[in-house]
Amino acid sequence: MLNVAVFPNIDKENAPMVLKRIVDFYHDKDVKILMPMDGANFFDYGKYGVEDIENHPIDMALSIGGDGTLLGICRRLYERDIPVCGINIGTFGFLADIELPEIESKLEKIMQGQYYIEERMLVSGFVKSGEDDERFLGHAINDVVVTKSGAARMLHLGLMVDGCRVMDYKADGLIVSTATGSTAYSLSAGGPLINPKIKVLLLTPICPHTFNARPMVIDENDEVKINVAAFHQDIIVTFDGQETFKIKPGDTVIVRKAPLPAKIVKFDDKNYYQTIRTKLLYNA
Amino acid sequence: MLNVAVFPNIDKENAPMVLKRIVDFYHDKDVKILMPMDGANFFDYGKYGVEDIENHPIDMALSIGGDGTLLGICRRLYERDIPVCGINIGTFGFLADIELPEIESKLEKIMQGQYYIEERMLVSGFVKSGEDDERFLGHAINDVVVTKSGAARMLHLGLMVDGCRVMDYKADGLIVSTATGSTAYSLSAGGPLINPKIKVLLLTPICPHTFNARPMVIDENDEVKINVAAFHQDIIVTFDGQETFKIKPGDTVIVRKAPLPAKIVKFDDKNYYQTIRTKLLYNA
Amino acid sequence: MLNVAVFPNIDKENAPMVLKRIVDFYHDKDVKILMPMDGANFFDYGKYGVEDIENHPIDMALSIGGDGTLLGICRRLYERDIPVCGINIGTFGFLADIELPEIESKLEKIMQGQYYIEERMLVSGFVKSGEDDERFLGHAINDVVVTKSGAARMLHLGLMVDGCRVMDYKADGLIVSTATGSTAYSLSAGGPLINPKIKVLLLTPICPHTFNARPMVIDENDEVKINVAAFHQDIIVTFDGQETFKIKPGDTVIVRKAPLPAKIVKFDDKNYYQTIRTKLLYNA
Amino acid sequence: MLNVAVFPNIDKENAPMVLKRIVDFYHDKDVKILMPMDGANFFDYGKYGVEDIENHPIDMALSIGGDGTLLGICRRLYERDIPVCGINIGTFGFLADIELPEIESKLEKIMQGQYYIEERMLVSGFVKSGEDDERFLGHAINDVVVTKSGAARMLHLGLMVDGCRVMDYKADGLIVSTATGSTAYSLSAGGPLINPKIKVLLLTPICPHTFNARPMVIDENDEVKINVAAFHQDIIVTFDGQETFKIKPGDTVIVRKAPLPAKIVKFDDKNYYQTIRTKLLYNA
Repeated sequence: MLNVAVFPNIDKENAPMVLKRIVDFYHDKDVKILMPMDGANFFDYGKYGVEDIENHPIDMALSIGGDGTLLGICRRLYERDIPVCGINIGTFGFLADIELPEIESKLEKIMQGQYYIEERMLVSGFVKSGEDDERFLGHAINDVVVTKSGAARMLHLGLMVDGCRVMDYKADGLIVSTATGSTAYSLSAGGPLINPKIKVLLLTPICPHTFNARPMVIDENDEVKINVAAFHQDIIVTFDGQETFKIKPGDTVIVRKAPLPAKIVKFDDKNYYQTIRTKLLYNA
Repeated sequence: MLNVAVFPNIDKENAPMVLKRIVDFYHDKDVKILMPMDGANFFDYGKYGVEDIENHPIDMALSIGGDGTLLGICRRLYERDIPVCGINIGTFGFLADIELPEIESKLEKIMQGQYYIEERMLVSGFVKSGEDDERFLGHAINDVVVTKSGAARMLHLGLMVDGCRVMDYKADGLIVSTATGSTAYSLSAGGPLINPKIKVLLLTPICPHTFNARPMVIDENDEVKINVAAFHQDIIVTFDGQETFKIKPGDTVIVRKAPLPAKIVKFDDKNYYQTIRTKLLYNA
Repeated sequence: MLNVAVFPNIDKENAPMVLKRIVDFYHDKDVKILMPMDGANFFDYGKYGVEDIENHPIDMALSIGGDGTLLGICRRLYERDIPVCGINIGTFGFLADIELPEIESKLEKIMQGQYYIEERMLVSGFVKSGEDDERFLGHAINDVVVTKSGAARMLHLGLMVDGCRVMDYKADGLIVSTATGSTAYSLSAGGPLINPKIKVLLLTPICPHTFNARPMVIDENDEVKINVAAFHQDIIVTFDGQETFKIKPGDTVIVRKAPLPAKIVKFDDKNYYQTIRTKLLYNA
Repeated sequence: MLNVAVFPNIDKENAPMVLKRIVDFYHDKDVKILMPMDGANFFDYGKYGVEDIENHPIDMALSIGGDGTLLGICRRLYERDIPVCGINIGTFGFLADIELPEIESKLEKIMQGQYYIEERMLVSGFVKSGEDDERFLGHAINDVVVTKSGAARMLHLGLMVDGCRVMDYKADGLIVSTATGSTAYSLSAGGPLINPKIKVLLLTPICPHTFNARPMVIDENDEVKINVAAFHQDIIVTFDGQETFKIKPGDTVIVRKAPLPAKIVKFDDKNYYQTIRTKLLYNA
């Protein structure tokens, strides 16, 4: 029996329809459906709801939403080594590989093992205050962003890479992005596109007032430390644009490659460059 | 008798020393010093303190601080038609024209009328919710910025200029800048430098995800309307990076040239391009 | 009798068809058609051909081509104070106001005086070698560009504005653009869009290696001097991308507002922002 | 006996002094000095001159000049598997690791084997006309650049990566850069900095008129094809800014990772980020 965990985004208009098609598809198959309790109740599928879904046996996770939904599930299931498959009802869908018309045919392919796993690197973010030990904050597939909140003034940031002070920024913030995240916030801030099979980190300043600030592509194993000058208030660290933590003046944010990658289900070897062309460059 | 209002920035380390030099300079002259009550008390000059300083007779205002301090005073004295003179103890000082070594000599020049007034355009910002009348928010010498607060997601903004829908942005925000403000936040966001004697507005998107977004220089009399899509929360409008207002989803921010300019005291015809070279380009 | 000079672009596929429609339209009217001799012969309208057309009496010039064709005619007729009207068979057509379906109706409007003249500032370019007097090179409506030719190395350029040394560039070149030219080469080099009714010059560096180089908007009356370091070879100055001159190592290129504007025929008060939206931003 | 080939840049003022110090250093050691015949004669060291130096037995090559000189030697000795060591008398010197004060001490280290080899990827460039076979043009350590010559108009370029059409550019050209070349021309055109130990290619458009053009980081094994539209004249392909070839309208330029890397002599593990900070970011 296959245990399939289904995670619908409750904000998406099409989610109930997609959810019904999934339930209908699996009803005569040797598949056990699980859903997070709140989502299950929200969509009147209480019988599939379980508490603490991340601790149940799961063979495959289905994301119903956009790439954002899928990112959240990957972070939630981190360390569980579970493949995540995205049904795209968002705008872009670089990661979510199933489009609406093909839900049943692709679910059938999953039943028959006709898919492959694409590993995407995650990064781990930590914060260190003074002489305290560093404290783990979270994981990200796209990016860890250090930025000011609201109306606060430009930050003074000191960047160390691989133990070496590289650059001092006066800026709204700094993005530490994976190659996967190069099509997300970093792109808006002027960063390059990076083929996600390349194992790197990308550092992109946000609105730097410093003229010599440039996006920088570094080795995936380089440790990144971002020190925030001690006189700032209202500094936040954000993971994939979804989880946010306040940090203190003078704190240092540390970002490293995470030990484990995310596992994204893909169906045919859709060329990355084809996706970039059709979903990003000529569809923006 | 000359009424001189002195506005010291209480956060600047050098402010007490500058304040003392000003008081010493004026003590044997036919000058009445006024200070805002809170600043006067803070610096132990309670005898000069007055409430509601903006309603007293003032012939000249002295700003002790950086350009930010001076901007705040100009907004505070708006409509009073009072020249403002800046003593620069900040980093840059494009507007504040007196440097520390020359305080007494320049104050002497003011006594003798050896200065001129440089007018700088201000803009007025308004907000309009649904069918309500537009509501005045504030003035700015540098910029009016519509942006998201904190960890909120990218805004969807619709820009109208002179009654015509020009551009739809997915972006962190949009800066409506004067030429004076072209060296401020707009520069960080990729905007051009503009000689402040040119009568224009500058529209600079902040981290646009939309590829075709570009800084745009428009006529000073063009009305700018920025509509924020109705599904956003945590949208703020900021004036000169100092005054902040929350606005509601679906609101429209309107920016127009203000009826009156600020009047900045200048001493000799320091060339704008010289200032740009020495204070900005080769000193960043 | 109206003297209409017709300038067809011989490289455009649709030019013969447009030319025929113009000739047909005017054949029963009190209009004398003139064409440059070479164009007249090329299109088998030898009877309309005249030598030195710029010295004949002309009441109105018709450009058949894109904006490039129209720019060339404006430069050719400079100082003649003749309105130029563009029939757009190019890609963009910011200046050329007549589209193919409306040729006859718009020519009729011209007959009846139902049009207006939009003046566009030109710039004049000069070169100065050592102690020689400056030498006039040409006029431009869009831009004067100082750049290296072919495989030559990055130029070292010194920029003076209004008598003040502003900036030293290591770059591929520098664009001195009018507001009209802000949608042309300057846009590719990262310059802002500028409403052409604003009276300014725009300085945009081409691929600067110098970090602090930024587009700069200056006053229309500011004189621009660009000094090319003495060790360069193969430096060229180009007017509107059409006329090219070689200059010598160490030469200085001088650009000033031209004494007279171009006069472009426009039909209804098409909003600039509407044109930007439909022809540039959402059609690129 | 060690065979050391010495390549002085004849345009550098300090070259004779450096050359003399090298000759002096080696005169009592078991080292045979070789020089290209023309350079040897130019500097009055005819006795060291050999014809076709690239065919002689060489254990180590010394470059006297800037990074440009070193790039040229690497291309000249390509396939000979010879380490190249740079004595920096240029401006930057990212690759040339010996500074003037340390010539003798570093040459001594070379005698004692106290150095290591840093491999830098090269790319090979080819051109293909119609149905002809592709033709090899050259190698590059920094970049292969497809661009227009002189006053020619904007190119229309079609980019294929890994067999997939990614992007169509209207632009002045396109840079295919290695990570090593990310501090060279690509940086001027807006490309990111890339740590040279990362195995990638970087595609950076030059002055694109197309809004969605962005720098793109691709896999080192991806083949890049750049098709130039058939109506262009004066198109050139340049290798490391030094070797230039004209290509024909409609030709396709193909760039691939070269089979062999360059071998650069380095002395201590100077941190890349330290070099970026001191030589580029705070010294530009």
